[in-house]
Order: sequence, then structure tokens, then C-alpha cells
Amino acid sequence: MPRLALLVEYDGRPFLGWQRQGNGQSVQAVLEEALFRFSGERIGVVGAGRTDTGVHATGQVAHLDLEREVDPGRLRAALNHYLRPQPVAVTEVRRVDERFHARFSAIGRAYRYRILTRRAPPTFDRGLVWHHPVPLDPEHMHDAAQVLIGYHDFSSFRATSCQARSPLKSLDLLHIHRDGEIVIVDVRARSFLHHQVRNIVGTLALIGSGKHPCGWMKDVLAARDRRLAGPTAPADGLTLVEVAYPSWSSRSSS
Amino acid sequence: MPRLALLVEYDGRPFLGWQRQGNGQSVQAVLEEALFRFSGERIGVVGAGRTDTGVHATGQVAHLDLEREVDPGRLRAALNHYLRPQPVAVTEVRRVDERFHARFSAIGRAYRYRILTRRAPPTFDRGLVWHHPVPLDPEHMHDAAQVLIGYHDFSSFRATSCQARSPLKSLDLLHIHRDGEIVIVDVRARSFLHHQVRNIVGTLALIGSGKHPCGWMKDVLAARDRRLAGPTAPADGLTLVEVAYPSWSSRSSS
Repeated sequence: MPRLALLVEYDGRPFLGWQRQGNGQSVQAVLEEALFRFSGERIGVVGAGRTDTGVHATGQVAHLDLEREVDPGRLRAALNHYLRPQPVAVTEVRRVDERFHARFSAIGRAYRYRILTRRAPPTFDRGLVWHHPVPLDPEHMHDAAQVLIGYHDFSSFRATSCQARSPLKSLDLLHIHRDGEIVIVDVRARSFLHHQVRNIVGTLALIGSGKHPCGWMKDVLAARDRRLAGPTAPADGLTLVEVAYPSWSSRSSS
Repeated sequence: MPRLALLVEYDGRPFLGWQRQGNGQSVQAVLEEALFRFSGERIGVVGAGRTDTGVHATGQVAHLDLEREVDPGRLRAALNHYLRPQPVAVTEVRRVDERFHARFSAIGRAYRYRILTRRAPPTFDRGLVWHHPVPLDPEHMHDAAQVLIGYHDFSSFRATSCQARSPLKSLDLLHIHRDGEIVIVDVRARSFLHHQVRNIVGTLALIGSGKHPCGWMKDVLAARDRRLAGPTAPADGLTLVEVAYPSWSSRSSS
């Protein structure tokens, strides 16, 4: 039974997240419906990252098993046809080994968080950025963030709903820079706790706006107490940009 | 009577263009309605560029006259408040001389045209790019385009509906480059004929996809015949990014 990996891009605005839910539209359900219309079979897809409600992806990966061989290019075209008019696109289909698992084979995940720092509200990017009318200093944010790199107890940045067995995680990269009116937070790790990126961004924003000094981040991390960190930044600004596997990654060429 | 210039950004998807129309929503009408809700007066706004249906702007400029002095920051905040939920934002308000005219004082206009060149359809950028599933060679397009720089008769790229007295225009810049899956066409002139940019882009796409050689552009220009050029590229990909005046321009910092 051939196993295939899909590289998936989606605008998360209309979805209750990746995972199939009882009470609304999910990216997984939309993909499974397109697969059903293509194959006439009920085929499940397994995603690498279970993005939350309103979170976007340019580099999500999912795997599935087909009954028979299908040309990857033909499957991509058919899925994109049946996905219309949903804002979900299969950018690539790859034949993978039957031991490949989108979630468990992944060795790294990268997210990008975008913050629009101007008084005027967003137009094109509404729902795709966090609108933060107060100016932020990306250099302060970057400096403050470096204390989080490495293996730590991230309890201060963990959602109460988090299902992970341990709050210990290894953070590989946290880079903040400005691109015009947008402050961009790039973050990379093997895996993340629930809301970890959004809680880190919400905390960094308090440093970038001058409400707390750079050194505050060290105290927040050491406290291992969610109540001491900043608020959870909105889902709008968050995009899953890459899932990495031992020999390839899903980062798009754009 | 104080004259003010507004720097305006809009997502053109829901609009029949800049200009007030009898039969649908226009950016001008939406701005004038926000001004009315702020001031209680019917105040007209004059735009620098009359963008077509579905065309976007990050650097549109409009002027208006108020009955009394208003702090520019306060006016910007009030207009953005009353513009909700329309995808139109006033990014800046500037006090200008009473001889300033958004359209007639302009000495240059810059547009950016974006073409998504991949098989998969757009997700985030639907209506904001031209989806061109066939690959394009931006270097060929750039080379071919250079014959259009300078003062020429642009009849081959002029819409039949064009109201301009003369087809003679001076094109100052035409630069094509790739940014990942997007091919970007940047163009600048004092002013443009109706559909001139979209007709040039439609013609360049035939060269970029290999249907015509680079040298074909010279023949099309020389023919001064609209029927010889390529089709009009869709409005989706077009954005007015800058209007230049003798001492300032509207280009956003992003």
C-alpha cells in the first residue's frame, strides 16, 4: 500500500485548526473530503503539527496510505481541484517509505510569528498578523529571547490545556527582526508545548514595548509559573513554516 | 480651509475600484462615508490614481479640504475607526499646501505586479496575485522589457476604453525579478495609459513562458496595434505602491 506525504499550505482563518473537530471545519476534514472525492474511499490523513484555531501553515506535512499507485503530480492536481474553494493547497506530493510518519518521524518544526506594529489596522493581512499599535524594539526582543535557547523547563510558557508529559523542551532558534512595519519572530525546535510559541511572543512583546527590561525573561523562565509570563499572543500571526525530517524538509521555496 | 493628504492602503478585492460608481462599492465612497461619520459634513476626496476594479494599493494618495483644523493623528485614528470593517486603512495624514492636488501634483507613480508561478493555487494570496501555473523566466522577461523604457507610443498596450488624449508616455523603470514562487514586475512612470501595466504584464508573460522570443517585444511596441500584444493580465496581481510628489512620496516603509 503506497504511502504518500503531502506538503500543505493553508490560510487558517476559516478553520478550527488542523485537527478534525465535532463542531466545525478543520483542515484535516477538508483534506480527507477531497481525498474521498478523488478516490471514493475514506482515507485518513495524519498531520505533523496540530495547529490551533486560526493558525496558518505554509509547510505543514501529512501522510496517507492509498490502495493503489497514483502519480504524485496527478494526485496533487486532483486534490487541489477538489479542495476549491477552501484556502488549502497541496503544494507537493512525495512518495515516502512505509515507515515514514508525518508526526513521529519529524525531527524539527519551525514557526514564524508576524506582528504589525503601526497605528493603522491591517488590510491585506487581517487575521494573518497580530496588530500591535504600540511600537516594538526587535533588537531588545531578540536579546531577551536568547536566554530561552537550549534545554529548559518551559512551564512558564505552557498552556494549562497542554497534554505533553513533560514541560522540558529544547529550543534551537529564536530570532527576531524587523521587515518594515512587521516584526518577525522565527522559532525552531524539535517539538513545542501547547501555546509555547504564542506565550513566548506575548512575553517578548512586553519587553519590546518597554514594559519590562530584557533581564525579565530570565526570571520568567526560572519561575516555571505560567502566571508570571505575558499573555498568549493571538493565533492570527502564527504560521507553521517547516517540518524537518532526517533527509528532507517542507520549507517552501518562497 | 486646511487641505490634508491621506496615504491610503486597501485590499481591492471587494471594490469596483477607487472611483465612486453608481452600481457598487468604491474605495472613494467608503472614505467619504468615514469622513462624513467623523465630521458630519459631506466632504469629497480626490485620489492620485483611479485604480480599476480589484486593483490594490499600499501607497494611494488622496486630498481633501476640512472646514477647520484637525490634528492629523486624530483624523487618522478617527477615519480608521469609521472605516471598519472595510479593508481600507489610512496609514498617514499630512497637512499640505492649498495648491497641492493629489492627482495633478503627482510627478510619478509606481506599481508592483505579482505573479504566482506554481501548479498549486494560491491560499493566503487569492485575489492578490495572478496565478500562472506555467513557469516563467524572469530574466527573459526583464531583458525583453527594457525596450519599453523611454518615451514611446504605447498604443499596443492601451485599452480601447482609454480616455488619454495621446498614446505617448514615458516609462521610467520596468524591473522583473523572482522572489521564491512569485515573479515580481516593478514599473514606474509619470503616468500610465488605461490598462498599460496589465497589458505589458500579459505580453511579458508570453515571453517568460517561452511562447515568444525576447525580440518580439520590440515588434509589438513598433506595431502600435493593441491586437498584436498579449492579453490583459488580471487585476488581482496589481498594486499601486507609490505616488511621488516634488518633495515627498507615499511609499510605505514596509
